[in-house]
Amino acid sequence: MNAEIIAVGTELLLGEILDTNSQYLAQQLTGLGVDLYFVTHVGDNLGRVSDTVRRGLERSDLVIMTGGLGPTEDDLTREAIANLLGEEMVVQPELEAHLRGWYARRNRPMPEMNIKQATLIPSARAVDNPIGTAPGWWVEHDGKHIACMPGVPHEMRKMWEEQIAPRLEIGGGGGVLITRTLKTVGQGESNVAEMVAELINSPNPTLATYAKQDGVHLRIAAKASSREAALGMIEPFEGRVRGYVGKYVYGIGEETLAGAIGTLLARHGLTVATMESASGGLLASYFTDTPGASEWFKGGVVAYTAELKVASGVDHEIVERHGTVAAETAMAMATACRERLGADAGIGITGVAGPTSVEGKPVGTAHIALDFLGETRVASTEWSTTRAEFKRRCVMDGLYLLWRALKKRDESGAGSGSEATQS
Amino acid sequence: MNAEIIAVGTELLLGEILDTNSQYLAQQLTGLGVDLYFVTHVGDNLGRVSDTVRRGLERSDLVIMTGGLGPTEDDLTREAIANLLGEEMVVQPELEAHLRGWYARRNRPMPEMNIKQATLIPSARAVDNPIGTAPGWWVEHDGKHIACMPGVPHEMRKMWEEQIAPRLEIGGGGGVLITRTLKTVGQGESNVAEMVAELINSPNPTLATYAKQDGVHLRIAAKASSREAALGMIEPFEGRVRGYVGKYVYGIGEETLAGAIGTLLARHGLTVATMESASGGLLASYFTDTPGASEWFKGGVVAYTAELKVASGVDHEIVERHGTVAAETAMAMATACRERLGADAGIGITGVAGPTSVEGKPVGTAHIALDFLGETRVASTEWSTTRAEFKRRCVMDGLYLLWRALKKRDESGAGSGSEATQS
Repeated sequence: MNAEIIAVGTELLLGEILDTNSQYLAQQLTGLGVDLYFVTHVGDNLGRVSDTVRRGLERSDLVIMTGGLGPTEDDLTREAIANLLGEEMVVQPELEAHLRGWYARRNRPMPEMNIKQATLIPSARAVDNPIGTAPGWWVEHDGKHIACMPGVPHEMRKMWEEQIAPRLEIGGGGGVLITRTLKTVGQGESNVAEMVAELINSPNPTLATYAKQDGVHLRIAAKASSREAALGMIEPFEGRVRGYVGKYVYGIGEETLAGAIGTLLARHGLTVATMESASGGLLASYFTDTPGASEWFKGGVVAYTAELKVASGVDHEIVERHGTVAAETAMAMATACRERLGADAGIGITGVAGPTSVEGKPVGTAHIALDFLGETRVASTEWSTTRAEFKRRCVMDGLYLLWRALKKRDESGAGSGSEATQS
Repeated sequence: MNAEIIAVGTELLLGEILDTNSQYLAQQLTGLGVDLYFVTHVGDNLGRVSDTVRRGLERSDLVIMTGGLGPTEDDLTREAIANLLGEEMVVQPELEAHLRGWYARRNRPMPEMNIKQATLIPSARAVDNPIGTAPGWWVEHDGKHIACMPGVPHEMRKMWEEQIAPRLEIGGGGGVLITRTLKTVGQGESNVAEMVAELINSPNPTLATYAKQDGVHLRIAAKASSREAALGMIEPFEGRVRGYVGKYVYGIGEETLAGAIGTLLARHGLTVATMESASGGLLASYFTDTPGASEWFKGGVVAYTAELKVASGVDHEIVERHGTVAAETAMAMATACRERLGADAGIGITGVAGPTSVEGKPVGTAHIALDFLGETRVASTEWSTTRAEFKRRCVMDGLYLLWRALKKRDESGAGSGSEATQS
């Protein structure tokens, strides 16, 4: 089966947004063994969208469309398909009821222009959108298919994963390409590449390294006649990769470093707390992005002022002697939040996010400390980068300190949390 | 002049890389007043690349190609164009000398396959590539043009800025397009669209609405012969737009809602503090993304447990009577952080991020409260969405509550923070 993607929206052609949907879908199609031959961006213009869909139906078995399903006049995906197939859009009572219910539950009146989100053409079936007002369309025409999804990435992904992809797995056929991504932390890309040099030219499975915001990723891709056969090739190959870089691997696929830490904490019955200055709550937010975080995340303080640091348990003498931006202060913050919040681990982050220097310390200065069961260590560094990137690096370093401590404990086969918390 | 972009490379269609080149070029073309109608991704396949370029020459004045200029067999951009125009690629002595010199300076032998990077067809002129081995091609055919640039982003940008864009400024003529984006909060896209219905079909300047994560954006775009003329058209039109939706506009362009709040707080000498449960620190992180936040952000608590809520100043009786997820508790959290941290405004957020319900309250329940100078209000709602999106919506609602309160104060021309904090 071969497919093409059509992303609809003038904002794409003005460069106002980056089309991440198409990359996501391309990865998904690759995994399903569907050949993707074209991606097209087209603006909110009825004629140009219709032409693009017509060409798509001529040359592809499956046309995947994103965007243009909103309620406004320049949302034209439905109209373009109806035009092309010479069919009429008709309001569907059950879709209208669902749409009005969506607004009713939010105690908001439904703007009448939204009614077009409750329409279908004879060739189309509605695809449920549990997190938005715009249902998708699944169109069948002369044995070809058009899948229409919203442009909002999280709505598109949910609709793809739960409703479009499953239809293709049945219809797909052909060989498949299965990929598995190992995520590492603590080493640069070229170091990781050197460690796996012996495997980097393997024809099948293939191995590629990618430097990402959350560490260096190693992508294993195996081509085979079936999903099972491909997985059978990946397993032993992954074992060889781990043989070289295993100690730096914190997770696979969508797993995050904060999530991997949560898993380790839960396994040992341990908990963590945070006190953040420079990272301003981003570390706590990373932890709480993980479902079930309340099991092991005790909470945190965003101590943006010296007063709040002291009020939160940092010895005022330390702040007076070393200042708010200092390794000693970061360590005191880690210990203070661990003790105050009754956690086993505490992470303290202080630094200068900018725009101006603090206490004579230059913008980019960062001190990240971990108090793990009463044992404290600190990482001090200096970055010249954007404010957002500075915060993110502070958080990644804090996560890395804790992850490494937990891995060591994990490998040493240390006992359960109840013992641990006594130490 | 109208243009289209063709990005060549199978890696794009496998989802291995994200096409940032096209967004960059789209922004550049918009600034030059060139209409971009299509972006196409096509793989390293001679037939498909040729077809795509043929269609491009049929429907566009300018075809901009990136990628496929490398030395290997699957770099096919030159071959596709030569095929299409029925011309022969011939090695150019001066290009070959330059190419061999490039390798000589690096004391490396030139792989003979690279010689194709020294070829031209009669219709093409070479475009210098000072930082790579692949020169670009500038092709003229029947009054249309094809610009071929490398796919490596920094090589492409340098070639664009120094050599391709200048040709368009001269050749392109036909004025510039200037855009301005007004960002609104508190209303859905269709409501905003209804408010500005009278302007939505204006030919020039044009007006379009976009539903974004940080509210509904209104994009005004004016075409004129000069930047000044375009700005002169935007000013009065923006005034008319604001006449309809001004009370919901919090910023322009890159401005964020948290940043707009910071500006208002600073203007009135006021400060804010936070106590977050469901949003887990994301609200504090939004505030601290803003440079200079330490002027007006006092700090926050991520009170993920009932104990920490109480330890942070929430009356234990309120938690016992109403539970941790309740409007009353959210209000008590807002007041507690305002008082404990000595701020003028406090925001409290509690809810059920999932995966499981809490105290019998379903996943998606959220209570967001604001205590502004002792006056407390709360917004209670329920969302069924992803965990990350749930956190984000809680934060946006909290920001909206505070922004609205500050706007009211701003418009009422109320006094300085010193007075305010006495109330």
